[in-house]
Amino acid sequence: MSEELTGRLIGDKISLGQEALSDLYEQGYFGRPKGKGLELSLVEAAYLLDRTRIRVLFGGDDLDFRSFFQAASSLEKGFEFRYVVYKDLRERGYYVQPGRPDFRVYPRGGHPGKSPAEFYVLVISERMPLPLQEIMQSVRLAAQMRKKLMLAIVDEESDITFYEAKEKVMSGLMETVEGGGMATLLEDRVVLWDPEASRRLHEGGFYGKPVGERLQLSLVESAYLLDRGMISLVDRAGIAIDQKDFAARAKLIESDFDSKFSVYKDLRDKSLVVKTGFKFGTHFRVYKQVKGPGKVPHSEYLVHTVSVDHVFLPPVLSRAVRLAHSVRKLMIFAYASDEVRYLEIKRLKP
Amino acid sequence: MSEELTGRLIGDKISLGQEALSDLYEQGYFGRPKGKGLELSLVEAAYLLDRTRIRVLFGGDDLDFRSFFQAASSLEKGFEFRYVVYKDLRERGYYVQPGRPDFRVYPRGGHPGKSPAEFYVLVISERMPLPLQEIMQSVRLAAQMRKKLMLAIVDEESDITFYEAKEKVMSGLMETVEGGGMATLLEDRVVLWDPEASRRLHEGGFYGKPVGERLQLSLVESAYLLDRGMISLVDRAGIAIDQKDFAARAKLIESDFDSKFSVYKDLRDKSLVVKTGFKFGTHFRVYKQVKGPGKVPHSEYLVHTVSVDHVFLPPVLSRAVRLAHSVRKLMIFAYASDEVRYLEIKRLKP
Repeated sequence: MSEELTGRLIGDKISLGQEALSDLYEQGYFGRPKGKGLELSLVEAAYLLDRTRIRVLFGGDDLDFRSFFQAASSLEKGFEFRYVVYKDLRERGYYVQPGRPDFRVYPRGGHPGKSPAEFYVLVISERMPLPLQEIMQSVRLAAQMRKKLMLAIVDEESDITFYEAKEKVMSGLMETVEGGGMATLLEDRVVLWDPEASRRLHEGGFYGKPVGERLQLSLVESAYLLDRGMISLVDRAGIAIDQKDFAARAKLIESDFDSKFSVYKDLRDKSLVVKTGFKFGTHFRVYKQVKGPGKVPHSEYLVHTVSVDHVFLPPVLSRAVRLAHSVRKLMIFAYASDEVRYLEIKRLKP
Repeated sequence: MSEELTGRLIGDKISLGQEALSDLYEQGYFGRPKGKGLELSLVEAAYLLDRTRIRVLFGGDDLDFRSFFQAASSLEKGFEFRYVVYKDLRERGYYVQPGRPDFRVYPRGGHPGKSPAEFYVLVISERMPLPLQEIMQSVRLAAQMRKKLMLAIVDEESDITFYEAKEKVMSGLMETVEGGGMATLLEDRVVLWDPEASRRLHEGGFYGKPVGERLQLSLVESAYLLDRGMISLVDRAGIAIDQKDFAARAKLIESDFDSKFSVYKDLRDKSLVVKTGFKFGTHFRVYKQVKGPGKVPHSEYLVHTVSVDHVFLPPVLSRAVRLAHSVRKLMIFAYASDEVRYLEIKRLKP
């Protein structure tokens, strides 16, 4: 015990003397040099205390791990989560420093002063609702500093799941196709009756689902084709429906039609093929290219539309990304602000 | 065209003469004998009309498929979905009759009059919110009649996903374990400090997560152990917390704590091991038996707690079941009514 360094808990920092600089900073990149000594954050101190590398004094007391942990947990909101993540990354052999949003992580073989950090880390509790804009803020901060953003979600049993989050540029390889033909809006879907137009749209653009020689179109497909002047549309009484009228009816059938459609349109305009993702519990599955109904490849993306002020629940996020990975697709969340933006979230195994 | 049988649309039924009995009923089990003739439902008639097996007269008109389909879609709510499902099952070679909730399906090789139906079918639109109690009503109806219940969910592109739904009896093989020791409630989790009790609870009951010689316990684990008198608990100030007080605090941290806990308790009481299902986006993953931390088997079930008046959104249901299958587990929804009940939903490939 005589070899332990002694620190003092002052506010939410732990101050150590000069000898800590060589023992802790230079050998393990713990803490930051301050004046002639070293300053540790609460998580760093807890980690070193648990390893009996330091002692921590507070007032007249020499705090044991349990007392220090309980004190730190009261001093710093989210301390427990940050501690779990810090400990995990350190034990995997990474150098970790406090930073924005929570930590900076150095690449394997790198350390402070030698190489730039590779990741910014945002620590999230499973129970903490997570606003999309909070993720985007961290995504942008990281991108500005040319870092990757790591999300570290701590579940109720203190297991951690790591994700990388980044903005995604979407683009595909489809060529434009010629439309034509008259369609009818039924209860909540559209039937295109003309066999020639049905064949063209399905083979050239992978629109709709053939039912005999007819083509069943989903609401977003119909709206897009109508918007592009590629079909004309009537209701069951034979009365013409224009684009605006159709959007109003579609919204009654499907309350999030507008946001779904703006994403559908953006993706189709970017030469991607967009089909329902129902079997995967998302709005869309997306292909870069479909060369014909007989040659449908594996779809690359699952895309789910959210509003700009969406708040994620971590378990729902976890489920979506997990499912996408299990079917070898990338999970993309799309939202419309000034333009449609895409957030890719994928599992990381640090 | 001269060989087609002629039917008349009257109300929402189609009446055909005596010759239809031998041509349609006896050879394909379409319709039901009525008086000296045969009566078809709208979906049966649409199916036969599309195959030019019948003509349908209405007033003075001979309806083509398009006119009949539009008329039927106006006459019967949900006609389009039922038609898609009926057509699909017929084309797979099953005999299908209208029935409760939507159809009866006969086993391969069976038909009306020869063998009892195997499945009752509930047809669901992807866009239709689906109350748990509506599923349970059909589950019970089917169980009473010794049938299986098939859910046929039609997505916006008219693709169908089939599920089987049934009540599940849950039971495991774990033996009781001795507790002991003092734990502290931190920000939103509990730490058991005693090394001996920590080891016993983790090895014997797979409770908690070891952190060094300590054991981190989740809220439901802590509540259960407290309820069983297997641990005692204090807050960060050292003040004792009893079971009722803990439940109140846990509810502030986790709004659905009560319902989660009642399911956790029921499963643990039934000798199962219950751990968080966070990585799968569900409340719990459940094991029949864990013989020790070094021998953790594959968990058999994912269990998600819902309220008795829960309303499923079909895409969310689809995602949960799909994910469970992709990790080779059964998806179980649990709800507390008079007692805790379990609804198993699994993919069917008819």
